[in-house]
Amino acid sequence: MVIIGAGCAGASGGMYASRMNMKTLMIGEMPGGLITTTHLVENWPGIKAISGPDLAMSLIDHATSFGVQMKGEKVQKIEPIAVSEEAQKAGKVPGYIVRTDSAQYVAKTVLIATGTKHKKIDCPGEKEFENKGVSYCALCDGAFYKGKIVSIVGGGDSAAKEALFLAEFAAKVYVIARTTLHPEPVNLDRVKANPKIEIIEGSQIVEIMGSNKVEKVRLQSGKEIPMDGVFVAIGHIPLSTLAEDLGVKLNAHQEIEINRKSETNILGIYAAGDVCDTGFKQAITGAAEAITASYWAFEYIQGHEIITE
Amino acid sequence: MVIIGAGCAGASGGMYASRMNMKTLMIGEMPGGLITTTHLVENWPGIKAISGPDLAMSLIDHATSFGVQMKGEKVQKIEPIAVSEEAQKAGKVPGYIVRTDSAQYVAKTVLIATGTKHKKIDCPGEKEFENKGVSYCALCDGAFYKGKIVSIVGGGDSAAKEALFLAEFAAKVYVIARTTLHPEPVNLDRVKANPKIEIIEGSQIVEIMGSNKVEKVRLQSGKEIPMDGVFVAIGHIPLSTLAEDLGVKLNAHQEIEINRKSETNILGIYAAGDVCDTGFKQAITGAAEAITASYWAFEYIQGHEIITE
Repeated sequence: MVIIGAGCAGASGGMYASRMNMKTLMIGEMPGGLITTTHLVENWPGIKAISGPDLAMSLIDHATSFGVQMKGEKVQKIEPIAVSEEAQKAGKVPGYIVRTDSAQYVAKTVLIATGTKHKKIDCPGEKEFENKGVSYCALCDGAFYKGKIVSIVGGGDSAAKEALFLAEFAAKVYVIARTTLHPEPVNLDRVKANPKIEIIEGSQIVEIMGSNKVEKVRLQSGKEIPMDGVFVAIGHIPLSTLAEDLGVKLNAHQEIEINRKSETNILGIYAAGDVCDTGFKQAITGAAEAITASYWAFEYIQGHEIITE
Repeated sequence: MVIIGAGCAGASGGMYASRMNMKTLMIGEMPGGLITTTHLVENWPGIKAISGPDLAMSLIDHATSFGVQMKGEKVQKIEPIAVSEEAQKAGKVPGYIVRTDSAQYVAKTVLIATGTKHKKIDCPGEKEFENKGVSYCALCDGAFYKGKIVSIVGGGDSAAKEALFLAEFAAKVYVIARTTLHPEPVNLDRVKANPKIEIIEGSQIVEIMGSNKVEKVRLQSGKEIPMDGVFVAIGHIPLSTLAEDLGVKLNAHQEIEINRKSETNILGIYAAGDVCDTGFKQAITGAAEAITASYWAFEYIQGHEIITE
C-alpha cells in the first residue's frame, strides 16, 4: 500500500495498515501535514493539550514503530498498470505505479491523503503572526479567545458559522467581507441577531500589525481596528490534482468523493482526510477515515489478484 | 445534548459537544464502556500502548474537563416530546425526554452510543458457572488464574489478544475456535509463538462442568479437557433496544443505521460507535463518528426551533 500524504490521516492509516502486516510506504512532502501549523490541539480525544507538531510526530512515530516506511518525496503521478484483455477476463485488476520527483513505487492499493492548503489573505503581517493571533481554524483555536476581540475574514457560509462559533467565546467579533457577507440566509439572520458580531462589508484587511502578537489590523479604508485574533475563512484548496489526473471523481469543490469505506470511484484507490468530501473535517475524523481505508484496502488485497508488473 | 453511553464514542462526542458550548449530559451504566475489559490497546493513533481502562478514563477526563456532566444511571426510554399540529406547521420539531431508572432529562438532541454486550456460548454450565470460572473479561479476571488451565472461546482478534494476556498468568491456554483462529496477522504470529497456547480449531464447547466451580469442559467431539477457567470472546450484541423502541431504523444485525453525518432516520437522534452499522468498528472510528454526530447535532440545534416542554 502506498499512502500519499503524511499528515494525521496518512500516518494513522499507515499505522493500521502496517499493523495488518501490509507492506506500507508513506510518501509526504510535509511530514505531519497541516496540523503542524497549529500551535495547540485540545481536541484529539484522550489528549487534553498537545502542540500540532507533537501530535503529528507521535502519529508518525506510531506508524513507523509498526514498520511503515517514509519518503519525503513529491508525488507527480499515479498510473494504473496495464492489464491485458486476457488478464481482465481472468478477473485480474491493476496495481498502480506512483511516480515521484526522484523514484517510482509499485502499489497494490493507494490511499490518497494529500489534504488541503489554506487560502491566504496575502497581506503584510499574515505570515509573521501565524499562530500569534492569525489562525485558519476557528474551531481549533476559538476557545483561546475568551473575552477577546477577533475578526473573521471571509464572506461565505464558513465565515458566518465561524463568526457565530467565535461569538461563544470572544467579547467582540468582526466579520470582514471583501464584497458582501452572503452565507445561507439562516446563518445571516443569526449573525445579524448576535449583539457581539459586527459586519464590515466591502472591505479587506491590508495589514496585520503588532509587536510579538496581533494587536490591530488596518483596513483598505485606512481605518485601524484593535484586535487580538484574525481568523481567515476564505477557503481551503483541496490537493486533489493527482487524484483528478487519475480519473478519481471529485465534487464541485474539487474534493474527492468517498463512501463510508473510504473508497473512491476507482477500484483500489482510497482517500481520507481533508482532501475528501466529508462535511465536517477534523484531524480525528480524517484519521478514522484513513484507518477505515486501510482495513478495506487489506480486504481488497486479500480478495483480488492484482497486477503489479 | 444527552449522550447515552460513556465509552470511547460517547466520551469523545461529549468532549466535542461540550467544546462547542452545548450543555452536554452523558449517561452510562458502565463508565469507559467495553474497552475497559481490554488489557492492552496499541492502535489508538498517537498512543503506542495503553491499557483499556486508562484510555477510557483519559477520554472521560477529557470530556469532563470541557464541562460534560456524567450520570451513572440506566436509561430506560427515549420519548419524543409532543408537538402540537400548530407548532408543527410553524416548523417546530420535538425534543426528547430521556428516562432513566431514577430520573428524567430533557434533550434537544440525543446521541446513542450504547455499544454492544458480549455474546454467550449458550451451553449447559455457562450460566451456572458465571463468575465461578466462566468469564467474559480476561482483563478483569485473568490474574485469578495464575498457574491454572484456561481456555479462550473465539476466533477473532479479541480471542487472540486475550489468549496472549491469559498466557501471562495461566500455565496453559487453549484457544477454541468454532471455525478458524483469524485475528490480525501480528497477533496470530504472537499466539503461534507462545509455548503456553494451544489452538483447537473447528470445535466448540458443548458443556461446562464442575462441582461448585469449573473443572472441565466437553467439546463437540466428546473430548473432555480439565480446565479451571473459560473465557468467552465470540462477539458482541448491539445494545440497540432503546433506539428500536423509539423507531430508529436498524439493520438485520440489530445495528443502528447511520449515514456519514452519524444521523439516524429520526431527526435529532444521532448514533455512533459499536452499536452502529459501520463495517469496520474500532474505538477510534466510533470516536470519530460521535464527534461527527456532535457537530451535526450542533448545526441541527442552531437550525431548528426545538420543543423542550
